[in-house]
Amino acid sequence: MRRTVVGVMGGGNVNRPTELAAYRLGELIAQRGWILLNGGRDCGVMAASAKGATEAGGTVIGILPGTDTHGASGDLDVAIVTGLGDARNLVNVLSSDVVIACSGGAGTLSEIALALKNGKHVILMGFDAGVALEPYRIGGMLTSASSPEDAVNRAARVVSPE
Amino acid sequence: MRRTVVGVMGGGNVNRPTELAAYRLGELIAQRGWILLNGGRDCGVMAASAKGATEAGGTVIGILPGTDTHGASGDLDVAIVTGLGDARNLVNVLSSDVVIACSGGAGTLSEIALALKNGKHVILMGFDAGVALEPYRIGGMLTSASSPEDAVNRAARVVSPE
Amino acid sequence: MRRTVVGVMGGGNVNRPTELAAYRLGELIAQRGWILLNGGRDCGVMAASAKGATEAGGTVIGILPGTDTHGASGDLDVAIVTGLGDARNLVNVLSSDVVIACSGGAGTLSEIALALKNGKHVILMGFDAGVALEPYRIGGMLTSASSPEDAVNRAARVVSPE
Amino acid sequence: MRRTVVGVMGGGNVNRPTELAAYRLGELIAQRGWILLNGGRDCGVMAASAKGATEAGGTVIGILPGTDTHGASGDLDVAIVTGLGDARNLVNVLSSDVVIACSGGAGTLSEIALALKNGKHVILMGFDAGVALEPYRIGGMLTSASSPEDAVNRAARVVSPE
Repeated sequence: MRRTVVGVMGGGNVNRPTELAAYRLGELIAQRGWILLNGGRDCGVMAASAKGATEAGGTVIGILPGTDTHGASGDLDVAIVTGLGDARNLVNVLSSDVVIACSGGAGTLSEIALALKNGKHVILMGFDAGVALEPYRIGGMLTSASSPEDAVNRAARVVSPE
Repeated sequence: MRRTVVGVMGGGNVNRPTELAAYRLGELIAQRGWILLNGGRDCGVMAASAKGATEAGGTVIGILPGTDTHGASGDLDVAIVTGLGDARNLVNVLSSDVVIACSGGAGTLSEIALALKNGKHVILMGFDAGVALEPYRIGGMLTSASSPEDAVNRAARVVSPE
Repeated sequence: MRRTVVGVMGGGNVNRPTELAAYRLGELIAQRGWILLNGGRDCGVMAASAKGATEAGGTVIGILPGTDTHGASGDLDVAIVTGLGDARNLVNVLSSDVVIACSGGAGTLSEIALALKNGKHVILMGFDAGVALEPYRIGGMLTSASSPEDAVNRAARVVSPE
Repeated sequence: MRRTVVGVMGGGNVNRPTELAAYRLGELIAQRGWILLNGGRDCGVMAASAKGATEAGGTVIGILPGTDTHGASGDLDVAIVTGLGDARNLVNVLSSDVVIACSGGAGTLSEIALALKNGKHVILMGFDAGVALEPYRIGGMLTSASSPEDAVNRAARVVSPE
């Protein structure tokens, strides 16, 4: 039976508080029994969230940009090797039941934009997505969370609406 | 010999002033002897810029998301049929020597972000790309144009730096 | 810790003996503790192998061509939604530690070819891949199995060489 | 107005007679007023066919696998830079009105298979595509040519049926 997949996006080069938040997100996602999906690389938000999920006994799927697992986080249970470079960003968001976006740069912004365009709810954690995506706040597709706990509570309402 | 390719991005559903600006961009790009590249569909900025370039005697390449040419603008000289859906946005920007972004939504924003991440200059025409991409203004990768003429002059400085 | 992923490729419209073989492959892969990866659709070799793995208590990942899970097998634990159409065939094989190919048509042949080109071992089960791929038999990248048991034994030698 | 695009596929490392045939194909395609589309790299069938078309005054579009034009043939008029690796093989064939396949290996075979699966006519020139694709000979989707002239005549019947 298909399991819930929560995508965590964010930069490969982030500050320590962002890494700690990403780690906590991974933990909370694992504790919910959800699968964590991210970009799979061994840096930044990807590495930290994977580590958090793994250490909480969860399952992690990494969607890698390259043609092999070189540079992958050691905390992936499954590596999806795409060979697509940045085009794999679309796979990241389409495969997620809901997307949580931590701090990041242009790559993360492209994921937020592609997620919303494809009807996915996006929960921002410290990411200012700009005015171009403001229309998605109407109707609630785009929201902001104040903490990892808040983000995961919001994700829960998306994947299990009452 | 490889010809200069200028990408024009923008929404499929835009207002009349944006369409007029896109048409003018197409004309100016054609008059420079450059190839116009866009997303190829028969709507919005894509259709208008293609029409402008064609009516000025230029060449237009459309990078289509679907698996055939259904829904393509009638003003394409060449249809690149990708079958990749929104993942073709990456192809749009990697294939452009410089990217001009008109008004648009999440799809256009994803193209701006992917372009900058991949080292392409982006010239904004009435698009507010938000604070996440502000770092790219430093160094001049991301600039704003006040008119189609200004945008094309800026593009010229990118493709033929003195 | 990364788990072993075995890809099972094959047609969406196959005869009953092929479905039975695919089901058996799924069972055997699950019993080995490997993850089954396939194209994820609810037909042919994909549906049968997923069912076999699920009923044996295994884990199934389906790499879907569309932009949502419409048409997916009910036996997937995780749906990777690519939106890439047939370009997802590359993802199928790059993500597999070894590929087993059952009967199929042009799609399956493209997967066999892409797998070999990218250095993946391919085990054929009743698929005649033609002379163009014969060079890969030298060195043992391309072999043929006489049964699901034989195929899985061959896969074991690839993923856990002594 | 959209121009006819003929795709020429084939290996990056081929013998001299194959290169000569690819060069001749490029010439003949240019003389017909068609655009030549190929994989764009500076080797084998790609380089030879591009050179033939260019020296006959034609237009060449190369669909490159990498994220920039490094390694591209010097005879491209337009480089479509995909960043998709081998997944660009799908773009090659979907963008061609008809596909001519010269000698090659697994990559070329994947293109033949993907072309047929997507309803494109394929004309083989010295490529043995194997029994798996034999069904496509029925109905005439897959044919064999005895020379570049024969291949281009066959292509003409596909793109301009009487």
